Amino acid sequence: MKHMSNRQIVLAARPDGMARLSDFKAVDTDIPSPKDGEVLFRNRLFSVDPYQRNLMGNGSSEWPAIDIGDPMGGPTVGVVEQSRHPDFAVGDHVQSWSGWQRYALSDGSDIRKLDADAAPLSTALGPLGLTGFTAWYGMTKLHAFKPGGTLVVTGAAGAVGSTAAQLGKLRGLRVVGVAGGPAKAARLTDELGLDAAIDYKAADFEDQVRRALPDGIDAFFENVGGPIFPVLMEYFNTDAKMTLCGTIADYSETELPTGTNYLPRLITLIHYRFVSIKAFAIPYVLDSFPEFLAEMAPLVRDGRIRYGEEFIDGFDALPAALMSLFDGTHSGRKLIVRDR
Amino acid sequence: MKHMSNRQIVLAARPDGMARLSDFKAVDTDIPSPKDGEVLFRNRLFSVDPYQRNLMGNGSSEWPAIDIGDPMGGPTVGVVEQSRHPDFAVGDHVQSWSGWQRYALSDGSDIRKLDADAAPLSTALGPLGLTGFTAWYGMTKLHAFKPGGTLVVTGAAGAVGSTAAQLGKLRGLRVVGVAGGPAKAARLTDELGLDAAIDYKAADFEDQVRRALPDGIDAFFENVGGPIFPVLMEYFNTDAKMTLCGTIADYSETELPTGTNYLPRLITLIHYRFVSIKAFAIPYVLDSFPEFLAEMAPLVRDGRIRYGEEFIDGFDALPAALMSLFDGTHSGRKLIVRDR
Repeated sequence: MKHMSNRQIVLAARPDGMARLSDFKAVDTDIPSPKDGEVLFRNRLFSVDPYQRNLMGNGSSEWPAIDIGDPMGGPTVGVVEQSRHPDFAVGDHVQSWSGWQRYALSDGSDIRKLDADAAPLSTALGPLGLTGFTAWYGMTKLHAFKPGGTLVVTGAAGAVGSTAAQLGKLRGLRVVGVAGGPAKAARLTDELGLDAAIDYKAADFEDQVRRALPDGIDAFFENVGGPIFPVLMEYFNTDAKMTLCGTIADYSETELPTGTNYLPRLITLIHYRFVSIKAFAIPYVLDSFPEFLAEMAPLVRDGRIRYGEEFIDGFDALPAALMSLFDGTHSGRKLIVRDR
Repeated sequence: MKHMSNRQIVLAARPDGMARLSDFKAVDTDIPSPKDGEVLFRNRLFSVDPYQRNLMGNGSSEWPAIDIGDPMGGPTVGVVEQSRHPDFAVGDHVQSWSGWQRYALSDGSDIRKLDADAAPLSTALGPLGLTGFTAWYGMTKLHAFKPGGTLVVTGAAGAVGSTAAQLGKLRGLRVVGVAGGPAKAARLTDELGLDAAIDYKAADFEDQVRRALPDGIDAFFENVGGPIFPVLMEYFNTDAKMTLCGTIADYSETELPTGTNYLPRLITLIHYRFVSIKAFAIPYVLDSFPEFLAEMAPLVRDGRIRYGEEFIDGFDALPAALMSLFDGTHSGRKLIVRDR
């Protein structure tokens, strides 16, 4: 269909919590004309994804939101209607980031030509687009998930989660999917072939978790956040690896408590600032001790690493010495009990 | 001094919160005799460290505690008194794990001979022992902390923290130490040469944090946990790296809430199960897109990755489509708005 104007859906207001229809406004603008080196395309397919809530602002996202009055962002598939660019011809299909508007211009640098014969065009927004890429990257590039372990995927009926879960199966993991409601849960095992499904809306949710995770969690692909996570995290095995891909349950939270012991706040920081937290245990890493000594002994000998010591005499003083570390009376210097 | 018995300090009871003197008991046992291939050594120096609270059980640690009646564990420095082992002679100094007992046997596999001329023997419990190793490992092997960034070290006046902080200086980081009380805080800048100190016991703690971290936190060496952490975590920069080395503030907690949104519970799990959590953002990783397509396109084409799609017709349906993702009405399948 030919259109007489470039209809756009722009952000009219920032949401107060959940997005509302009144946060958007349709406006009709002129269809632009391509300059030399540009193409004009008409968008036909528009991806609708949870992260778009973050583009609207006033939520838990720490990323910059779009400006009021700008078209909503998001990937599209369009067809070239006019071309003054050597690489694109009228009728070519392209994947773009041009968002919620019928027409857009490009100089070619931000669009990708699609082969309509290789795969349905819609897959460029799904498994072969940013949805699939998100699932693949989080399953591939952050951790080496070991075959044989148990992978839990939340939001497993969703576009990203279902792809991540299936990649887990292909990589030899036992995959447990979490979704809301019996219909979605059934689809995880029946259609996607996952090993077990957990319905987080079910009254026996915690029992379902226990039954589905007899061997704990080795790998975790997290899309959801919110109150499900603290239940699942108890099942982490030693050396568990977690990809924090999304926190959909929190996207509409206008104000997460700060400066408190509120867990979703840390999850949000990890998510939006890519904070990497690692821990270790000395008994597992002692093979690095010679390397440590090789670096540290000269530093200590040369006085470049200073150290304080506090000696307490007498074997029987040991218990009281230990207690002094916790009652605020100790200087902080290395405490050593010396027995004559 | 020669002793007539092998005095041991054993665990008499598990603490109820903070360790108490009554949780320990001194017992006198016979001094053992070495068999062929063994050495008998007398412990002279005993390391006293916060993690020993974890060995007593009934705290936040998830690691196995020692049994009631067993000697408290911990590193020692001893001197060989009898040897039936070819590698050790009477008078040799050794570092052992034999804990709170005056005498112990070893077959040589769990002791390390020390050179009393190379460094004071006590350093084998401090900067050249497990204390130093802990600081070095956490600063060296988990993350590549980049020179020029800001490193925050909590428990910075303590044995592990002060070593980690100085290693940070040697590696070109701006180092901010956190300690309790003005005396410890002053030592961080005056004795250790750190760039700034924060006194977490001061009334203006949060102001001190703000002043000390004008450029946020790039690297974090965490020894303490507890209520300080949520204040500091707000200063994480993008791509911040955190070594979770200890949670001293929580060691004496007999019961951290579970199944709630209580942040210290997650920190404890990361600490004791070495859970690794990573996040990513698509705009930063798009250079992996071709690698993704190369793996994924054949999988989708061959039906090995299944995907569901749900189409909604009409450009103007976009806002309502987005809202359906958050109100629980959506199937979870990839949602695409199609414009004719």
